[in-house]
Amino acid sequence: MPDTLIKVDLSQSAYDNDMIHNRWHPDIPMVATVKPGQDFVIECYDWTGGFIKNNDSAEDVRDIDLSIVHFLSGPVGIEGAEPGDLLVVDFLDIGAFPHNAWGFNGFFSKQNGGGFLTDHFPQAQKSIWDFHGMFTSSRHVPGVSFAGLIHPGLIGCLPDMKLLETWNRRETALIATNPNRVPPLANAPFAATAHMGRLQGDAKASAAATGARTVPPREHGGNCDIKDLSRGARVFFPVYVPGAGLSMGDLHFSQGDGEITFCGAIEMPGWIHLRVNLVKDGMAKYGIKNPIFKPSPIKPVYSDYLIFEGISVDEAGQQHYLDVNVAYRQACLNAIEYLTKFGYSRAQAYAILGTAPVQGHISGVVDIPNSCATLWLPTEIFDFDINPGSSGPSGGIKGGVDIPLAPDR
Amino acid sequence: MPDTLIKVDLSQSAYDNDMIHNRWHPDIPMVATVKPGQDFVIECYDWTGGFIKNNDSAEDVRDIDLSIVHFLSGPVGIEGAEPGDLLVVDFLDIGAFPHNAWGFNGFFSKQNGGGFLTDHFPQAQKSIWDFHGMFTSSRHVPGVSFAGLIHPGLIGCLPDMKLLETWNRRETALIATNPNRVPPLANAPFAATAHMGRLQGDAKASAAATGARTVPPREHGGNCDIKDLSRGARVFFPVYVPGAGLSMGDLHFSQGDGEITFCGAIEMPGWIHLRVNLVKDGMAKYGIKNPIFKPSPIKPVYSDYLIFEGISVDEAGQQHYLDVNVAYRQACLNAIEYLTKFGYSRAQAYAILGTAPVQGHISGVVDIPNSCATLWLPTEIFDFDINPGSSGPSGGIKGGVDIPLAPDR
Amino acid sequence: MPDTLIKVDLSQSAYDNDMIHNRWHPDIPMVATVKPGQDFVIECYDWTGGFIKNNDSAEDVRDIDLSIVHFLSGPVGIEGAEPGDLLVVDFLDIGAFPHNAWGFNGFFSKQNGGGFLTDHFPQAQKSIWDFHGMFTSSRHVPGVSFAGLIHPGLIGCLPDMKLLETWNRRETALIATNPNRVPPLANAPFAATAHMGRLQGDAKASAAATGARTVPPREHGGNCDIKDLSRGARVFFPVYVPGAGLSMGDLHFSQGDGEITFCGAIEMPGWIHLRVNLVKDGMAKYGIKNPIFKPSPIKPVYSDYLIFEGISVDEAGQQHYLDVNVAYRQACLNAIEYLTKFGYSRAQAYAILGTAPVQGHISGVVDIPNSCATLWLPTEIFDFDINPGSSGPSGGIKGGVDIPLAPDR
Amino acid sequence: MPDTLIKVDLSQSAYDNDMIHNRWHPDIPMVATVKPGQDFVIECYDWTGGFIKNNDSAEDVRDIDLSIVHFLSGPVGIEGAEPGDLLVVDFLDIGAFPHNAWGFNGFFSKQNGGGFLTDHFPQAQKSIWDFHGMFTSSRHVPGVSFAGLIHPGLIGCLPDMKLLETWNRRETALIATNPNRVPPLANAPFAATAHMGRLQGDAKASAAATGARTVPPREHGGNCDIKDLSRGARVFFPVYVPGAGLSMGDLHFSQGDGEITFCGAIEMPGWIHLRVNLVKDGMAKYGIKNPIFKPSPIKPVYSDYLIFEGISVDEAGQQHYLDVNVAYRQACLNAIEYLTKFGYSRAQAYAILGTAPVQGHISGVVDIPNSCATLWLPTEIFDFDINPGSSGPSGGIKGGVDIPLAPDR
Repeated sequence: MPDTLIKVDLSQSAYDNDMIHNRWHPDIPMVATVKPGQDFVIECYDWTGGFIKNNDSAEDVRDIDLSIVHFLSGPVGIEGAEPGDLLVVDFLDIGAFPHNAWGFNGFFSKQNGGGFLTDHFPQAQKSIWDFHGMFTSSRHVPGVSFAGLIHPGLIGCLPDMKLLETWNRRETALIATNPNRVPPLANAPFAATAHMGRLQGDAKASAAATGARTVPPREHGGNCDIKDLSRGARVFFPVYVPGAGLSMGDLHFSQGDGEITFCGAIEMPGWIHLRVNLVKDGMAKYGIKNPIFKPSPIKPVYSDYLIFEGISVDEAGQQHYLDVNVAYRQACLNAIEYLTKFGYSRAQAYAILGTAPVQGHISGVVDIPNSCATLWLPTEIFDFDINPGSSGPSGGIKGGVDIPLAPDR
Repeated sequence: MPDTLIKVDLSQSAYDNDMIHNRWHPDIPMVATVKPGQDFVIECYDWTGGFIKNNDSAEDVRDIDLSIVHFLSGPVGIEGAEPGDLLVVDFLDIGAFPHNAWGFNGFFSKQNGGGFLTDHFPQAQKSIWDFHGMFTSSRHVPGVSFAGLIHPGLIGCLPDMKLLETWNRRETALIATNPNRVPPLANAPFAATAHMGRLQGDAKASAAATGARTVPPREHGGNCDIKDLSRGARVFFPVYVPGAGLSMGDLHFSQGDGEITFCGAIEMPGWIHLRVNLVKDGMAKYGIKNPIFKPSPIKPVYSDYLIFEGISVDEAGQQHYLDVNVAYRQACLNAIEYLTKFGYSRAQAYAILGTAPVQGHISGVVDIPNSCATLWLPTEIFDFDINPGSSGPSGGIKGGVDIPLAPDR
Repeated sequence: MPDTLIKVDLSQSAYDNDMIHNRWHPDIPMVATVKPGQDFVIECYDWTGGFIKNNDSAEDVRDIDLSIVHFLSGPVGIEGAEPGDLLVVDFLDIGAFPHNAWGFNGFFSKQNGGGFLTDHFPQAQKSIWDFHGMFTSSRHVPGVSFAGLIHPGLIGCLPDMKLLETWNRRETALIATNPNRVPPLANAPFAATAHMGRLQGDAKASAAATGARTVPPREHGGNCDIKDLSRGARVFFPVYVPGAGLSMGDLHFSQGDGEITFCGAIEMPGWIHLRVNLVKDGMAKYGIKNPIFKPSPIKPVYSDYLIFEGISVDEAGQQHYLDVNVAYRQACLNAIEYLTKFGYSRAQAYAILGTAPVQGHISGVVDIPNSCATLWLPTEIFDFDINPGSSGPSGGIKGGVDIPLAPDR
Repeated sequence: MPDTLIKVDLSQSAYDNDMIHNRWHPDIPMVATVKPGQDFVIECYDWTGGFIKNNDSAEDVRDIDLSIVHFLSGPVGIEGAEPGDLLVVDFLDIGAFPHNAWGFNGFFSKQNGGGFLTDHFPQAQKSIWDFHGMFTSSRHVPGVSFAGLIHPGLIGCLPDMKLLETWNRRETALIATNPNRVPPLANAPFAATAHMGRLQGDAKASAAATGARTVPPREHGGNCDIKDLSRGARVFFPVYVPGAGLSMGDLHFSQGDGEITFCGAIEMPGWIHLRVNLVKDGMAKYGIKNPIFKPSPIKPVYSDYLIFEGISVDEAGQQHYLDVNVAYRQACLNAIEYLTKFGYSRAQAYAILGTAPVQGHISGVVDIPNSCATLWLPTEIFDFDINPGSSGPSGGIKGGVDIPLAPDR
């Protein structure tokens, strides 16, 4: 039985666990050390540290202070790891805690974070998803259930100081272009709610002032929210500091490509069983800037999809130049419109696209002026037949339930 | 044996075949009529009408007048089709001509069309791909072969006048924002090289003056370049005019998601065997704006991928806000850099990403300020092992050949 | 365009084509020679040489003289091939003739060949299957259509004299244990209907007297009827004679594992595009006795199956000892019984199991006294939902058509 | 969190746990009752109740008294279940115990059970497999690792008295044909080592005298050893007694089709999370005699196989009539011979075929006199390339370790 190097107590504040941190900084001390070839278990809070509850109100989603996220477990030191190496991480298994067999999906208010379709869903909403072994379903979204493609939304090694400075410089420059935007263009370092792990005193204060926020994916990986980085996958991470410093969290039971609802997957606390190895000097050997990975041999396999196209003409009919974001947003809106024909509210349809193993493909990026993106909706996750037929939609859900909404205050 | 409704003679100019057209306009006369339930065969020129030759020079790619594309076969009328219906099209089979078992992939000069990585590959280049039954390989790109996922890059129904006017209006407005840009933001109607099928005289002149160019994907489908719209797929197209008017062309033997090199798939002439049916009033019944489709039960299946991540920080280190195009470009550049470690030139690597059954996934679009996109490279298409290992790259190709380049004049 | 080395004229008797043969013998002269690395096309008769017609009578199936089968195209010589080598054969593509886009499936009378369930289906029956591009359906079996997994039922290299003698000796010995059995235990050489290709005169008479019948699979491959030996597969055949002598035929548009109806796949004439290579001394290098192969990257992929179990207790309730044949027969009978609940006749159900891409798995062979075998029926091939549900079977076919039967005379 | 209805203490004898039984008899009392729709967890001993140890000696495999197997957990009663219903069982998840992350694979001595290749491997051997999350590898079989396809080897409902009598009658009749055979043709009831759960006193003695042994699969399912009955699958079991009485055990971490080594999978104790539902009168509605099932959407997916053919000519060259057992045995022996070329001992190769996710297909059962069976070996489970190439085998393992063997005493 592998050692559990980091444990979490869900009844305890994540701030009281010194093996947790919520900023990226090279000075955060390692909390454990492993050897190459070793396997071990890491437990994780959900990304909000337990702020979101299993109930029928979205007030917690509306009210959360997003400067506290993401609560990560680590960093774990790897013996012999040096800058320039690749850290090979095998995700041997990932799971929910048996006593906490549920997760949540939320839409943030446009006033507090927003999301991919925030102009269409401007207020806070939340759905709860129960886990039944490998499967999940929601009391707020009837008629759909699917197998989880469990993965950490966020994982990567500590940046060195130079990389951290690069991040802060470029993100600050972006914020400066529109500093009052709601939601913001990016999140600057913010010391007040920083959790710097075992760093204390002045060292903590100094690091908290410049520690990078955990929201975006960056060169080291970080918050990639790639659903295919799942149990059974192998990832090659760049190493920037001696010992590598691997941290992780933001576990998802399932997620659609794009994590479009932002609080977007089915979020949960849980554990991850890892094995680490090194490719010495691997960054130069293979010309690696961002992580690369190989998919798992075990994952949910659906073969029947209904696929929605979108092009880069926006909801108002305006033409955008080869903009994949606009195209994918249209594909999502097309799918939402379609699902309403089977009885779903638009919010329920949005939640399905965010949580189910939906694929988002970049289909065309050169045919000026329109990009084309496709959203692949697995048909087998529905209790009824959602395929189009000559007699029009039949079946579907009865309605009567919807996703709780908390109006902005 | 189904009837071949449209034949093409590759030794004849596409302009001399009145069952071909290269603009979208509701006045283009139907060239054949079929009944719902009927299956039939349509032959197609390659998108350039035979301009690109099987040789070792890229001068044809450099010199082509892109206003002539795409040469489409049709329109085919469907009895009983009315505006608002969905036209159900089964792709029963698609193939190359036995006597023309090759295709081409090109990078356009930045002065003449460009492409997704045109700043990195600013000059015209061309590779030739030979077909060996279901497989293809190139004398210009050694060490790689793969099964074709054959599909029409371009297919859709005729727009009505209102839709056509919408297209022209919004695209003209975009061009007006930077009318002298090279390459252009979009292509305005252009009568000089218009081929309007059987339309003649004043009617032709009038339609040619406003006929929409065929380059972008639009509401009706059109030039979607979706590799998964392949033999065996079923597509549901919106109908805008009585009789529907289905046209198609731009056949591809294979293509990667994004068709990133622009002339971007393995382009070929060939034939397509179709069956059509109708869902009466299907657009309203299912809330359809763009085509939807279902994938084929028969397609190349690769299970082992090496996956490259990219984020929306550009080559110069500048931060972009949730821009999937930038992120996917970085994923492509990361994959190109990787492949050079195995002996490929950057141009060869670019050609592989454009032609092989590469997947492009939208992985994260909400984690401000960075989008994350992934490029999935199937490892099984290479003759050697491209996976990373502790001893660094071994194997690979020997070099000595490259993709022909034609310098700008 | 590859050369077509062997052509067939379906209006001509296979006996009049000297590039065809219907027995295995080392003396049959090569009809063409190719070099390693070369690709070429071979045309094939259907296995009966055109005896079975596209009509609604099973009299041809009842009356056929089975001593004439199988009409094979070849043998093709490969330069440099020597006994002990492995002949590597890539199936680059396989297809039906466009002007002959149909095939047949038959049950033989127990008096003339029989089949896996001959005690249940003792009389001749025949269904005709039309090809629609990659798909097939039958006017005799409504409600079902599927993509073809096209393959040669029969392919292999010429035996040398020693191997031929081994075959004749062991099969004759088996026949001798029950020489009057109907159907027979095996087929002895039979000169009267032998077609020995270009062999003439005394040499022909001599070879015809001992030439092995083509019915069983043997060490060289031969009539393996493996549905996965399909277009895109690579096969490694043992070589026994100088030049190898590769022959093939018995093309199938589709077949279920086991080819249980005997005339069992969807039988058709057609063409096969091959490439050959050699592994010198490969039999010893790899310890090869029978062919080995690798599956195609392109094949119909169905993911949703309904799976039937069978055990080695026969229809009369008698216990057999670990007999997989009995177990698989029970699984087949269980599936047939199930399908009758959806309106199919037992004969139609039997035809579906024989022709569709059904899998037969050996699930348990050690749990005395019962073997367990499973039959995997893809649910997606049916127009209606065949899954079990709490309300019992609904949907299904209306009946009114059945598979033609020709009573024994 | 679902209730764990049956717990096992691996340090306690299975005979001391009254929720365990090792015979089938309708009188065995239910140990728990659940409602349709309910999900719950059942813990299981390994099939031997802990007799086989994690060490490097095969003496336990040699010495085990096989009359004690299989230790099953149950029976669980389902409210409202009546004879003739179908019990729908969803395998929501299955796992090993974290503190017992290993399993065993054994070959039984021909004197004590034997196996599919017992004439080739007549003595007891044992390999130990360690679990690393979803993956397994063995210190006794280097160079191979794979993801587990976890499943219960044995599961089914209690027989009624009539069915039990049928079993005993037909199996006793078989034994009578050769009562002294070693290994035996079947196992008769044997009271001395019977564990009848909560049945006590005379009732126990009476039932033990006639309780069916658990070794073979039968009409109710039972010891089917179907690797695809895995986590995520849905099974429909016939119900024979009021309350159904569902029992299960013999968990396998992984197994190849056929479970050819008899103690044949990677055997382990563990837990299974189930949900049950009923199809009232489902046996008649759907014509069900044996269980049917649907596969899991989550399972290990390997796409690259090397496939070995076998025909029904035995090792001595003798011809058998359409005997799939002989054909599959030859395919297995062919694969074993092949693997020896890469450094494996024959015993190691045999263990790989028994434990890895190998497929066994029934490929031809009508081409007299030879059946054809195929064994599908996934190539991706090996650390090195096992595909054939022109230069012969390279790579492979170094040897120096083998599978422990315990000579017969």
